[in-house]
Amino acid sequence: MTSRVVIVGGGFGGLSAARALRRHPVEITLVDRRNHHLFQPLLYQVAGAALSPGDIAEPIRSLLADQENTRVLLGDVVRVDADAKRLHLKRGGTVEYDVLILAAGMTNSWFGNDDWEATAPGLKTLDDALEIRRRILLAYERAEWAEDPAERARLLTFVVVGAGPTGVELAGALREIASHTLRRDFRTIQPEEARVILVEGGDKVLPGFGGGLPDTALRALQKVGVDVMLHQRVTSVDARGVDLGDERVEAATVLWAAGVAAAPVSATLGTPTDRMGRLHVEPDLSLPGRPNVFVIGDIAHFAHGRDEPLPGVAQVALQMGKHVARNLAADRKGAPRRPFRYLDLGSMATIGRRRAVADLFGLRFGGLLAWLAWLFVHLMALVGFRNRLVVLMQWAWNYLTFERNSRLIRGSEGEGSDSVL
Amino acid sequence: MTSRVVIVGGGFGGLSAARALRRHPVEITLVDRRNHHLFQPLLYQVAGAALSPGDIAEPIRSLLADQENTRVLLGDVVRVDADAKRLHLKRGGTVEYDVLILAAGMTNSWFGNDDWEATAPGLKTLDDALEIRRRILLAYERAEWAEDPAERARLLTFVVVGAGPTGVELAGALREIASHTLRRDFRTIQPEEARVILVEGGDKVLPGFGGGLPDTALRALQKVGVDVMLHQRVTSVDARGVDLGDERVEAATVLWAAGVAAAPVSATLGTPTDRMGRLHVEPDLSLPGRPNVFVIGDIAHFAHGRDEPLPGVAQVALQMGKHVARNLAADRKGAPRRPFRYLDLGSMATIGRRRAVADLFGLRFGGLLAWLAWLFVHLMALVGFRNRLVVLMQWAWNYLTFERNSRLIRGSEGEGSDSVL
Repeated sequence: MTSRVVIVGGGFGGLSAARALRRHPVEITLVDRRNHHLFQPLLYQVAGAALSPGDIAEPIRSLLADQENTRVLLGDVVRVDADAKRLHLKRGGTVEYDVLILAAGMTNSWFGNDDWEATAPGLKTLDDALEIRRRILLAYERAEWAEDPAERARLLTFVVVGAGPTGVELAGALREIASHTLRRDFRTIQPEEARVILVEGGDKVLPGFGGGLPDTALRALQKVGVDVMLHQRVTSVDARGVDLGDERVEAATVLWAAGVAAAPVSATLGTPTDRMGRLHVEPDLSLPGRPNVFVIGDIAHFAHGRDEPLPGVAQVALQMGKHVARNLAADRKGAPRRPFRYLDLGSMATIGRRRAVADLFGLRFGGLLAWLAWLFVHLMALVGFRNRLVVLMQWAWNYLTFERNSRLIRGSEGEGSDSVL
Repeated sequence: MTSRVVIVGGGFGGLSAARALRRHPVEITLVDRRNHHLFQPLLYQVAGAALSPGDIAEPIRSLLADQENTRVLLGDVVRVDADAKRLHLKRGGTVEYDVLILAAGMTNSWFGNDDWEATAPGLKTLDDALEIRRRILLAYERAEWAEDPAERARLLTFVVVGAGPTGVELAGALREIASHTLRRDFRTIQPEEARVILVEGGDKVLPGFGGGLPDTALRALQKVGVDVMLHQRVTSVDARGVDLGDERVEAATVLWAAGVAAAPVSATLGTPTDRMGRLHVEPDLSLPGRPNVFVIGDIAHFAHGRDEPLPGVAQVALQMGKHVARNLAADRKGAPRRPFRYLDLGSMATIGRRRAVADLFGLRFGGLLAWLAWLFVHLMALVGFRNRLVVLMQWAWNYLTFERNSRLIRGSEGEGSDSVL
């Protein structure tokens, strides 16, 4: 009988596994609670009104439409019954598997301060990005007509909490908005009036990155005008601003880029997790004591032979997906499984338009070239040729020109959660 | 002192008035509760997942950025105090005017059955279109995996209520989705399985259109496979389907294109309205007894020298906007105002991709040519050159190819109002 492989999650890890298994003699079902794959590394560009949602998302069905051994199911997996080899879906219904590949990813985490969520949204999904875009644009709309100088300053103050890649990129995008994107639209607002503050608890930006990148990134942020506050922790968030210990910052827009936690389903497997809820995995990426369950991507805690677990980046997920396919092929031949080895292709973050810091293949370089190189690496790994070409052209067009910005505010004035403004 | 002209609404009428006044010695404030102008005639294409929201909407600020005598205010006008010459905004605050141009448009109306709104959404805004798109795509996702044949048939039954232009276009788009757009994505669903029903209370489709267009449109709809039910009224709508008198139709998706009513602000002017809430206007488009208040576009009831009031179409609004500018110029010169005369450039509706019925300048023609001619007329009337070119290219590309469909479902499985499914 053909083996039933169920993949949970259509992000980089899940899609990579599905594509690597496309010629295997298996029946694949890919389950995701959203109908689209998201090119998450560019999500901050949607939040920053430079790209439209459709530019960075593709229906998972379309990406896998030519793959005959694969079906796609829209469903939210709430529980894994590993003994019965069965998934339970939120709307009821179950899915049975012989092999499970869990690639469910991460969600935002406010470290127990869940009431901060409404005031300081995070950036993991398209809906998050659209909500952030809405808040930024509304703040400008109101500042344009604000008569009280203090209120106007508050409306034009943007706080980003957390200086990992998402926070750095958001802060850069916010300066970009002030300096270029909206300059023509708002008559009374001068670019210098907008204040972008990046708050980080540690002693550097991009703390996960090696070499001189944190220093380079810090200088680049300061050069474009981001106010970087290191060694500062947010002690409270409310509708009018944030407290950083004793210091009060009045700000209409607060964005959260400080924490993530594993998708809740990780807690239902019954094997050890770390404090972020990520599942500890064996060297072959399987779950301890469950050789038929693999865990890949951000939701896996893989620390073998390393000081720190592998970071939650697309390259790790892509490589893990391929590795699981290789080990399943080994299983069928009766050959031993191989341990996963991560080939670090480098790291990269962008700060505003066409400004970037990169450390790729041991080479350090910056600017547009770095951005294109990185885009190339990710695109090649991912989608089919036609798609790759179309998406690349669209991104290039949208990114290199200012023609097609995406500055729509959904909903109408007076609707929606505008309590922060 | 320079006269303060306040325009309420950034649709075709409001924008047309603003642009016609761009060289007048006046201070213009355009107030809209949304930040974007919407090319409403193509809204059904967003609902049908063929175009993205950004393709048919532009920030009003951008459209008017080069116009020095005009400012844009994001605000929801809830009341006009015509004696004090003052508008009241929903969030508080007021705007004073010397001349008011009211172009606030229409909203959906369920004829007093407001509980139908949640089950049978209408199509007036981008949010409406995205909600409809979400429902259509979710219905397919669930049908793909439905095991019970009756449930599967219900999921694949789409009812459109009302056979005006919006209803006809939606029904055509739904057939297009079944026959082309989604064919590759859903393996188990055959195009013939999807049933699209267009329900109309009267004796023909496109009842407002003259000549042979209703008959031509009816045949075109039947040819693409739409099930047109004339002389049928919807007597109830619930989460499982609709009742048409004695007949029950089980359907997961019900769309409302049967009625609109004037924006609520029309009731605060204190002058007579018709049963749809539209304001009766004088021949010069001013309000009876209020020569400094003009009402244009869909929200105006203009019936001088006609059997029926002017229809709520873009051409009427565009021409009215220009006419108000001419009469304001006449006022300044001390010349008499001229009565408004509508120059009917013809009518048009599309049925699926590249199939259309048109009656333009007295010529009747169909197909792609008609569609392009109509698009040309509207675009020329509206936006600046750069924009016009970019938008036209994008639409042409998106519409003529199948490359860039927009099939994202916002939100995740299990979230949102999916009670109908």
